[in-house]
Amino acid sequence: SRSLNLAVIPGDGIGQEVVAQGLKILSAVLPQDVKLETKEYDFGAKRYHATGETLTDADLDALKQHDAILLGAIGDPSVPSGVLERGFLLKLRFAFDHHVNLRPSKLLPGVATPLAGQPEIDFVVVREGTEGPYTGNGGTIRKGTPQEVATEVSVNTAFGVERVVRDAFARAQARPRKKLTLVHKNNVLTFAGHLWTNIFNKVAEEFPEVTTDYIHVDAATIYLVTDPGRFDVIVTDNLFGDIITDLAAAVSGGIGVAASGNINPSGEFPSMFEPVHGSAPDIAGQGKADPSATVLSVALLLRHLGYEAEAARIEEAVSADLAERVGKPARSTNEIGDALAVRVAG
Amino acid sequence: SRSLNLAVIPGDGIGQEVVAQGLKILSAVLPQDVKLETKEYDFGAKRYHATGETLTDADLDALKQHDAILLGAIGDPSVPSGVLERGFLLKLRFAFDHHVNLRPSKLLPGVATPLAGQPEIDFVVVREGTEGPYTGNGGTIRKGTPQEVATEVSVNTAFGVERVVRDAFARAQARPRKKLTLVHKNNVLTFAGHLWTNIFNKVAEEFPEVTTDYIHVDAATIYLVTDPGRFDVIVTDNLFGDIITDLAAAVSGGIGVAASGNINPSGEFPSMFEPVHGSAPDIAGQGKADPSATVLSVALLLRHLGYEAEAARIEEAVSADLAERVGKPARSTNEIGDALAVRVAG
Ligand SMILES: CC(C)[C@H](C(=O)O)[C@@H](O)C(=O)O
Ligand SMILES: CC(C)[C@H](C(=O)O)[C@@H](O)C(=O)O
Repeated sequence: SRSLNLAVIPGDGIGQEVVAQGLKILSAVLPQDVKLETKEYDFGAKRYHATGETLTDADLDALKQHDAILLGAIGDPSVPSGVLERGFLLKLRFAFDHHVNLRPSKLLPGVATPLAGQPEIDFVVVREGTEGPYTGNGGTIRKGTPQEVATEVSVNTAFGVERVVRDAFARAQARPRKKLTLVHKNNVLTFAGHLWTNIFNKVAEEFPEVTTDYIHVDAATIYLVTDPGRFDVIVTDNLFGDIITDLAAAVSGGIGVAASGNINPSGEFPSMFEPVHGSAPDIAGQGKADPSATVLSVALLLRHLGYEAEAARIEEAVSADLAERVGKPARSTNEIGDALAVRVAG
Repeated sequence: SRSLNLAVIPGDGIGQEVVAQGLKILSAVLPQDVKLETKEYDFGAKRYHATGETLTDADLDALKQHDAILLGAIGDPSVPSGVLERGFLLKLRFAFDHHVNLRPSKLLPGVATPLAGQPEIDFVVVREGTEGPYTGNGGTIRKGTPQEVATEVSVNTAFGVERVVRDAFARAQARPRKKLTLVHKNNVLTFAGHLWTNIFNKVAEEFPEVTTDYIHVDAATIYLVTDPGRFDVIVTDNLFGDIITDLAAAVSGGIGVAASGNINPSGEFPSMFEPVHGSAPDIAGQGKADPSATVLSVALLLRHLGYEAEAARIEEAVSADLAERVGKPARSTNEIGDALAVRVAG
């Protein structure tokens, strides 16, 4: 019999509430013969305040034993900016070599968008997850003085760029439109830009069926609001990917429905799945959070582990649920979870 | 009698066409007693192909003699990406210490926006112009090999950050809403982020009437499409400013109406005014380009030189012209320029 051994990290704020729904749907959708084991981990603000720890070597060893990780959200105003982001989230992405940060954007029927005319939106961003300006490479001299200088170094390697570009080409190849767009700023960041562009063009030769183009990151933000339908698969660096995927989420229904996977394609380390939204401390504990983004992240998790039919069933359930919301009173986090559980089981 | 000694750089593509209209409006609006002198410079792709030059020391010496610079657009597909951007545009911004890159966004009545519900948009982005990842500080080793490493260094100094932050506070103070938002990514880029945040908070003490807040750059892109009305003045670094001002232009009427000023506030060097759009080689020479962005850049130029009434007259003319376009057939670049010239003169 099969098994799924899942690490669960509810985290801070609304993380607890949305992860509970994600697990509810996971249990409801999994085939009978799959033995689901979950272990909860207490990372986040509470543990940091109690112990000063964000993510220890022992924690990493424990997490390594799982098939995958489901994360709610990490972050709280009581913790200085950067401590949990760098000390937990980025540390985990880097330690487990999550170099493919997968962020699909699909505007589902009936879902509200800030854009006029309800455009068709269906693309996926493949964001590099282990390089760029996210490496923590940089420093400060003469801190707090009028002579302070602070640097941030974007580190880009042929190894790191080629593997994520190849992954993106393979994803584009597998989609009906077979189109891949490189987003960078190669007219200004010429060192990193040339590396990305050259590797992109080289790998393109291996995928003759994939149509390619290149767009500067600033122009990409324009297209995301004026012509989002032009995108199929986008590959980009860590920081540009961070920025454009929040915008992509906003135009395709908001961060309430934006899912993401931090993927280690080789399977050497477990991949981690999380909603794009944060811990939203202002609405935490009120049952107001939309669990759809977490539930869709569970779908990405299942697809990654080979449960394609179950992933598709979750996506259909969320799509149907969202379409039915129009004009109805708002439901609680738990009510939405219950409705989705019925749908995926049925 | 007064004089205005202007350097004119039409540049590439549609640059020629739109700058001609900018000059037409400038002549029409200037008070009789102001002697307008213009000198045209041939920077851009043509000169680069003919001489290999983008901007020489002698060019800089010549440009220095002017009161201000009006630029159309630089860039052509025949020139490798980065050559003119780094060799001309950024070289000039750095050489003339254009540290305040001013980009207003106002959705004028009747102007189309990709956003639903025609929201109220009226804010200005103060983008740092001489630091950040734009310094060209970085490099490549083992170029073209599987072991290539390319770096880009974002350089941030207390000196550079404080002067632009202070400029932004002063602008916020002078506006009715008196609100200033810092946009950065201080939870990940912690070295530069702390420098920006600390200086922002320190300077805030000198401006007790200005309300402040902080938003991560990724979240800022969400607000720009879901709630752009929340912004009054934004201050941000060079790269984040590049990205969010293209998005800001897109939601507030498109790059056809987005103006910018590259300002040296001390007046030690001439400031440069340019539309946010590029050279648009695909429509060059066809009389299709909208000169409004260039004309509005002329308004910024006049305001910078102390001609406030004339600047306001141009802005009112463009606003009226845009409002009248609704439902009418498209006019040529020249026709729009003529109509604006009549308005500002009348
Ligand atoms: C919280 C933060 C460190 C993170 C990032 O910048 O990657 C978040 O914005 C995201 O997109 O997952
Ligand atoms: C052309 C390019 C170098 C420039 C920039 O990145 O600053 C442009 O995008 C702008 O915003 O003025």
